Amino acid sequence: MFTSLSFNVEALKDYVIRFFKAMDVPEIDARIAADVLVAADLRGVNSHGVIRLHSYYGDRLKLKQIDPLSPIEVLSENAATLALDGANGLGQVVACRAMSRCIEKAEDAGLAITTVRNSNHYGIAGYFAMMALPEDMIGISLTNSQPLVAPTYGLRSALGTNPIAVAIPAGQERSYVLDMATSIVPLGRVSVYEKAGQSIPLGWGINSAGDLTEDPAEVTHGGSLLPLGGPAELRGYKGYGLSLLVDLLAGVLSGAAYGLGVGKPSNERHADVGHFFAAIKIDTFRPVEAFKQDMDDYIRALKDTPKIPGQDRIYIPGEKEFELTEKYQREGVPLMVEVVEALKQAGESAGVPFDLEPVG
Amino acid sequence: MFTSLSFNVEALKDYVIRFFKAMDVPEIDARIAADVLVAADLRGVNSHGVIRLHSYYGDRLKLKQIDPLSPIEVLSENAATLALDGANGLGQVVACRAMSRCIEKAEDAGLAITTVRNSNHYGIAGYFAMMALPEDMIGISLTNSQPLVAPTYGLRSALGTNPIAVAIPAGQERSYVLDMATSIVPLGRVSVYEKAGQSIPLGWGINSAGDLTEDPAEVTHGGSLLPLGGPAELRGYKGYGLSLLVDLLAGVLSGAAYGLGVGKPSNERHADVGHFFAAIKIDTFRPVEAFKQDMDDYIRALKDTPKIPGQDRIYIPGEKEFELTEKYQREGVPLMVEVVEALKQAGESAGVPFDLEPVG
Repeated sequence: MFTSLSFNVEALKDYVIRFFKAMDVPEIDARIAADVLVAADLRGVNSHGVIRLHSYYGDRLKLKQIDPLSPIEVLSENAATLALDGANGLGQVVACRAMSRCIEKAEDAGLAITTVRNSNHYGIAGYFAMMALPEDMIGISLTNSQPLVAPTYGLRSALGTNPIAVAIPAGQERSYVLDMATSIVPLGRVSVYEKAGQSIPLGWGINSAGDLTEDPAEVTHGGSLLPLGGPAELRGYKGYGLSLLVDLLAGVLSGAAYGLGVGKPSNERHADVGHFFAAIKIDTFRPVEAFKQDMDDYIRALKDTPKIPGQDRIYIPGEKEFELTEKYQREGVPLMVEVVEALKQAGESAGVPFDLEPVG
Repeated sequence: MFTSLSFNVEALKDYVIRFFKAMDVPEIDARIAADVLVAADLRGVNSHGVIRLHSYYGDRLKLKQIDPLSPIEVLSENAATLALDGANGLGQVVACRAMSRCIEKAEDAGLAITTVRNSNHYGIAGYFAMMALPEDMIGISLTNSQPLVAPTYGLRSALGTNPIAVAIPAGQERSYVLDMATSIVPLGRVSVYEKAGQSIPLGWGINSAGDLTEDPAEVTHGGSLLPLGGPAELRGYKGYGLSLLVDLLAGVLSGAAYGLGVGKPSNERHADVGHFFAAIKIDTFRPVEAFKQDMDDYIRALKDTPKIPGQDRIYIPGEKEFELTEKYQREGVPLMVEVVEALKQAGESAGVPFDLEPVG
């Protein structure tokens, strides 16, 4: 649909680090934020990658609407629980610290939950869940987000696309990594169709009158996304229930904003985004090796089941993204030419020119 | 679609207690199992209510395929975690004990997870999640189940309808109670259409050739249910990912059977069902009163948003079920005449005649 240019992963990450440093982000934090942002492009989730570098992060850092220097505050803590105030810091950095602490606590307690209030858009939810994998833990990462999704029977956006990410290690097979918006698709996916002048599948969203529409512009202008499942007869109220669940855990339990109160990542309002992280140490419940053997056996059994006509492969959640990452690390990570142009223009005005040469 | 007879709730529960006692279930456990079973009918989830009394529980108890007397075994335990072996007991009883212990541990640790292997079909997942509500905790209840759902691109059932249940207390408003199969609908729903000679909405299931079908008999005979979301273009792979997630937590983490290995609740094979429970004590993270105030505000704001044409109400997950329960407690709980007939026949042969008179 779009042409793209590819860039060396390390060079791209280095640019993003330079950019964040120029926005007064300390180097160690700039490295974290860059790693999260580029990880999105590497996993093919380009709606959450460097396309957002300026609009979600750079512009707001420059105007001090995100504060990269104020320290995260501990609100309450016990052996297995931790409640944090993100101090309006960069979402990626706050989330990375919160999940690191969660994993440390789970190392001793067997499991831990960390909530975060007063944060910002943190990028891809899956990144933080996956931090648990090398520790032989199950990682969970939830965040609320600006209202874009209509509840079942609702005419207006009242819920975020509130993602659920869970990472579970396997043995020889790739880890299970679920990272899903609780809407059918994120808004960025609808925008891609809109820019390409294509219609969207019926069911993705409603227009301002509440009717299902195939016109992406009707969704992005006064319409709403629909929760996973779509219409009530296909049980869209389950997707609505899941979206609300994420907000109750990430927003209400943390004491952050929720529902209509969550700020957009691209405007001046204080966003007060909330996150929820959990880590579960597998060998608290059963020996890790036996667990991983079962994971491998399960994954292989699923992949060995018969396929419907026209399909030759059953995927495990996260598998396509692992393969994309490996490919892009070898061949360079593709960015749409429109994104490259935007990076050039915005980088110029920010004093950090995007000067990378495409590869391949 | 069906005519029904209504019965006094306490009388119905009393019959179920008598039935379980006749199957050598100790009185205290019979009361638990009856409460869980009748709660399903009270919540309108009649597919998991007394309709299953004989086929899922009575017949198997009689043949000693479920052992109501062997004690639950602790496999490992620390302050916030507990791994249990259900000793092939009645699922409802095992689950109730496991969730009780989980809540006790969370009272001290702030949160707790309990896994269970070697259990049986436990009824409605939501019952155990809701046990956390009076303790001002968030409750989570997951279970795996017999394979009925095809993975995305798969031709054969390889996953259970693996439900997710989460209960979160509010203040003046009713609690949030999500209790959802991760398939679009459970098999019982398709059977209802089949018995009524009606077609099902396109998307609920596939036939043995892998095609979407409106014929319920094609789903129940050699076909499969589809995961929440349905076809890939509407992101059915997210529902598949959620179904798999439930099995990885309830089945693999607990050391129970998983995937194709989970036994049916209605045959002689050892079922080895796995469960996963969690309890989160709210005031570990923030004061309960502030939390409940936000819950109320959120629920009211959601219900106040504009509705699509033809709808005048936005529901919170669990709200319809609370209203049904109140109605049925007043007016009697309805059972389909076919179910009443089946209870009479089976009760006769089991030596516990179903002798209740309908009310109203």
